[in-house]
Amino acid sequence: MIIVLKQNPDREQYERLAAWLRSMDLTLHESTGEHTTIIGLVGDTSAVDIDRLGAMPIVETVKRVQEPYKAANRKFHPMDTVVEIGGVRLGGGYFCAVAGPCSVETEEQICGIAQAVKAGGARMLRGGAFKPRSSPYSFQGLGGSGIDLLLKAKAETGLPIVTEVMDLSQLPMFDEVDVIQVGARNMQNFQLLKELGRAKKPILLKRGLANTVEEWLMSAEYIMAGGNSAVILCERGIRTFETATRNTLDLSAIPVVKELSHLPIIVDPSHATGYAKYVEAMSLAAAAAGADGLIIEVHNNPAAAWCDGQQSITPEAFQRLNARVDTLRKGLAA
Amino acid sequence: MIIVLKQNPDREQYERLAAWLRSMDLTLHESTGEHTTIIGLVGDTSAVDIDRLGAMPIVETVKRVQEPYKAANRKFHPMDTVVEIGGVRLGGGYFCAVAGPCSVETEEQICGIAQAVKAGGARMLRGGAFKPRSSPYSFQGLGGSGIDLLLKAKAETGLPIVTEVMDLSQLPMFDEVDVIQVGARNMQNFQLLKELGRAKKPILLKRGLANTVEEWLMSAEYIMAGGNSAVILCERGIRTFETATRNTLDLSAIPVVKELSHLPIIVDPSHATGYAKYVEAMSLAAAAAGADGLIIEVHNNPAAAWCDGQQSITPEAFQRLNARVDTLRKGLAA
Amino acid sequence: MIIVLKQNPDREQYERLAAWLRSMDLTLHESTGEHTTIIGLVGDTSAVDIDRLGAMPIVETVKRVQEPYKAANRKFHPMDTVVEIGGVRLGGGYFCAVAGPCSVETEEQICGIAQAVKAGGARMLRGGAFKPRSSPYSFQGLGGSGIDLLLKAKAETGLPIVTEVMDLSQLPMFDEVDVIQVGARNMQNFQLLKELGRAKKPILLKRGLANTVEEWLMSAEYIMAGGNSAVILCERGIRTFETATRNTLDLSAIPVVKELSHLPIIVDPSHATGYAKYVEAMSLAAAAAGADGLIIEVHNNPAAAWCDGQQSITPEAFQRLNARVDTLRKGLAA
Amino acid sequence: MIIVLKQNPDREQYERLAAWLRSMDLTLHESTGEHTTIIGLVGDTSAVDIDRLGAMPIVETVKRVQEPYKAANRKFHPMDTVVEIGGVRLGGGYFCAVAGPCSVETEEQICGIAQAVKAGGARMLRGGAFKPRSSPYSFQGLGGSGIDLLLKAKAETGLPIVTEVMDLSQLPMFDEVDVIQVGARNMQNFQLLKELGRAKKPILLKRGLANTVEEWLMSAEYIMAGGNSAVILCERGIRTFETATRNTLDLSAIPVVKELSHLPIIVDPSHATGYAKYVEAMSLAAAAAGADGLIIEVHNNPAAAWCDGQQSITPEAFQRLNARVDTLRKGLAA
Repeated sequence: MIIVLKQNPDREQYERLAAWLRSMDLTLHESTGEHTTIIGLVGDTSAVDIDRLGAMPIVETVKRVQEPYKAANRKFHPMDTVVEIGGVRLGGGYFCAVAGPCSVETEEQICGIAQAVKAGGARMLRGGAFKPRSSPYSFQGLGGSGIDLLLKAKAETGLPIVTEVMDLSQLPMFDEVDVIQVGARNMQNFQLLKELGRAKKPILLKRGLANTVEEWLMSAEYIMAGGNSAVILCERGIRTFETATRNTLDLSAIPVVKELSHLPIIVDPSHATGYAKYVEAMSLAAAAAGADGLIIEVHNNPAAAWCDGQQSITPEAFQRLNARVDTLRKGLAA
Repeated sequence: MIIVLKQNPDREQYERLAAWLRSMDLTLHESTGEHTTIIGLVGDTSAVDIDRLGAMPIVETVKRVQEPYKAANRKFHPMDTVVEIGGVRLGGGYFCAVAGPCSVETEEQICGIAQAVKAGGARMLRGGAFKPRSSPYSFQGLGGSGIDLLLKAKAETGLPIVTEVMDLSQLPMFDEVDVIQVGARNMQNFQLLKELGRAKKPILLKRGLANTVEEWLMSAEYIMAGGNSAVILCERGIRTFETATRNTLDLSAIPVVKELSHLPIIVDPSHATGYAKYVEAMSLAAAAAGADGLIIEVHNNPAAAWCDGQQSITPEAFQRLNARVDTLRKGLAA
Repeated sequence: MIIVLKQNPDREQYERLAAWLRSMDLTLHESTGEHTTIIGLVGDTSAVDIDRLGAMPIVETVKRVQEPYKAANRKFHPMDTVVEIGGVRLGGGYFCAVAGPCSVETEEQICGIAQAVKAGGARMLRGGAFKPRSSPYSFQGLGGSGIDLLLKAKAETGLPIVTEVMDLSQLPMFDEVDVIQVGARNMQNFQLLKELGRAKKPILLKRGLANTVEEWLMSAEYIMAGGNSAVILCERGIRTFETATRNTLDLSAIPVVKELSHLPIIVDPSHATGYAKYVEAMSLAAAAAGADGLIIEVHNNPAAAWCDGQQSITPEAFQRLNARVDTLRKGLAA
Repeated sequence: MIIVLKQNPDREQYERLAAWLRSMDLTLHESTGEHTTIIGLVGDTSAVDIDRLGAMPIVETVKRVQEPYKAANRKFHPMDTVVEIGGVRLGGGYFCAVAGPCSVETEEQICGIAQAVKAGGARMLRGGAFKPRSSPYSFQGLGGSGIDLLLKAKAETGLPIVTEVMDLSQLPMFDEVDVIQVGARNMQNFQLLKELGRAKKPILLKRGLANTVEEWLMSAEYIMAGGNSAVILCERGIRTFETATRNTLDLSAIPVVKELSHLPIIVDPSHATGYAKYVEAMSLAAAAAGADGLIIEVHNNPAAAWCDGQQSITPEAFQRLNARVDTLRKGLAA
């Protein structure tokens, strides 16, 4: 950590600051120039409150040198994390396509799609039971009975299931769910993250629409600090000024996350682009950039989907997409 | 609502679409050009699922003409909403300064600050008991005992209190709280919003860091649709590329909200700018732009604050700021 | 084009508006609902000034239905444009890697790098002679003599050259340059674009940091409207709140551009990410998403580069990258 | 400047780096921790190329401590700059309202508006002769004859004139113009900025749509480094995801600029919001935040304006706005 002091800092205040820092077992290295004094802090700075430091009258700015996350940090855990989900592996070279509808509608719908995406190469089934909708007047999902239908589809196909929790009060209904998804709007719902730190199953943590990679890893850290290290990151687009796509898919986040963390990262091209016509191109791009998997909205009849039909592809399109992703990955591995 | 069809739409599909729309009591007005066919939908379109429409193969785009919110819409409720909080009025010409520390620390601290900000002109006391922190290793707030301390400060000063709920499981602790704050990260926590729709007290709804004014009003609509019409909006900065301030305070949102909605809107210059030195200028600007109030972080010893000290002003600075805001408002009203 | 009128529009004003629109050979289709009146305009609306329409007192909003560009529009030119550059083809299935240093430094440097990138598979040489630097105190490029050195490198290797013009007064020095690059900061330098519409050589048009795909295509339209249809688009990252990369590479722009336009699009992963370590991943991703080429910063000694060394890769890394891109493209084509 | 080295830096490379830095008369202060080595650089670091440093294999990151601008820096020029324009003063407590149409249309129009805004309290006249339009098919301005008409309006009213230059080849036509405006899209047109450094008249430098305050001050530095210190900054909104306004007016930039620089700053609420109905609120807010002036689009018949009518206010509205701004400023000064 580096502290830049204001010009001509009050000596007494400086001594007090220095004493406080030393009391935390930190060593101070001072560099004094004509216009600035810089203090390099050496030692374990994770306990130092950067806001409090910054508020001191003699301090101009404080800059972190080390990342503020530990459990999620590759520096301390160099090996890739591999997450195991009912026999399916994800991360560390294991690639995984997750597919299914935006929302669970009927038994026939979810079981039919589950069979279709399994045939198309999906290793897991996704489907929304609780749906975060920006309008209170839109369809809000089937709730608990949606989870029951997902479990039927799982029983029929053997595909592990991924579904989103919207509030920690819903968690008891997630007992038999294989992977619990935290949506983009909940990425910084810290109460929920803490609770998921105590869960005994993998968490799929979507990136928030306005969150940096560092904040995303800090949210993963919340879960890991609670004892659950099975976190799968999911890039799903960030918000920018561009309106041609629903969000802007930030594929650079893949190599950035791979450098900073050992956690697996998958990509959701459906929510990111918002249009079925762009999903295949961005799926291939994600795989080429090194993603550990994809999560894709598939519907047997997109035009009749109860939500997000515009971004859903058909099972046939999914099968083709998946085959092309396979070809691409094999080519690059050769 | 306007539907733009793709070139040469399939006639049969068109007839099916038209029949479906007419079944919802809508009238269709068709305009056919060389390259496009446009359908104007007349009637109550609030039940039409825009995503579903957009997913139909013959549809190119769908554009809304009417706002998707009703209860929050000024068109249907032309008069300004005035929110009553324990004798204090906010909105419709009633201006209100809310002040207090980022987080409640000790009885001495919160009661001392409460006295000081009351003397400085504050009409309500703010203070965080549950704190959303991006790091699991940072101070997380005193929780329920923080609310107890706020209630002591209220008993001593008579100031109504505003404090943030982070999860709906905490709501039972908010029985005696006057105004429940929903933080920026929870603006689209729809489960929480629905629950607050059943609360019998005003809700302070902060704007999300990456949310449009329309989405913000839709979140207010969630609360209002549940039966609680006492919603106070709070602009606190949005996320942009600029790093000189913590966020970018969007003061244009004030006249925009005033045009679109009847709800009161207040401004938080402390979180928006992130620096005490910019708080007075932005408070004056907010008042000049027509804000119904301010919510400001005040600490008796910013350098020792347990969080966000960098953006807290002293009680003396608050008193001066408040006096200047008063002068400005009186000048403009004259 | 669709015009939404305010509630209860003044009849006389409406008649005047209608007469003006009809005078431009447009047909009006009116849809009147309880709260709104919608007018669908049918005919050639490219001459209608949308701002002027929007300013009329009875108009609430105006929405375009057709894209405002024609020459760049795929609807009117369904076939992919193939740009020819001294025997090299780009677009319509012809893929092209462009490589070279950020700035031309010495004859030895540019000729050495040219040989190296040619050996590594580059089909064109890039290099900056005029450099846009945010500080007046930074190295500003060699200017005209930089172009001379590029021409020497071209003579030695046969590689066509691409270099950036910063101002139209420099154009006379670009006579022997093969492709003229317009930098991101000049994407809306309309005087320059008009002048380049009269140039007899291909233009590489970089996307502006805060520009939508539509605005980018409008800038291409400026060049094409002047008679030069050899425009190559180049995605190089847009500005967002994320700081882990220099910009946010918007690869979704590739399928979006391919849908809307017939122009070729290439990708600059060097400027987009700002770090050499992320360049290969994003090059592969760009190729997978359907890019027609790449433009990559290569330096024989990045640590000694006069500018942007942090994002330059070595000739060896370029060779490996190019081979992997080839493998990927062949796999996908099979 | 602070250099953070990678873990276990190669000793030989380190010595070479240190020798190079010392050769520039810099003193190095090293702090070595378990995981990092930090070097504090003391001395005049303005000649150090931060990109080159960052590209060195042993360097992890480089952080600036001092601002990269000098002439524009308040640290070195504590007194406010006052710009003199034909008897009108701006900055350092002198407030100035600039008003006029988006574009000059006819002699009658510009002279009529000039008289009207003078009566309404404007101290300068604005009007576009060269218009940057995103479409090549839109009205591009009257060009040189537009400047002639502005000069007629100046002769009639005595108001100094402000008009935009789009390219340095147009500069000879600006001989009698009082203030030369650099538009947002040209903020980083460095060739133009250099040329304006040699101009003998004030420059109005608009902030780019995607530029930070620091980059904006660096562009001012380009002009000042050439010898012209009469630079007026103009905040006109930045680009964000919000679509309710044309851009997002960043009023926090006012206190930020006032802290970092001695240059005057004015605000353009017309382009920022894009709607006449929001102009007065944002003008008052700008004045309250400490702006040194306003630049406002005024048209005698907004609905017939040749461009940007939607954001133009009438002379009557301007007069009222100006009177209210006066009241506000007097109240705050008292």
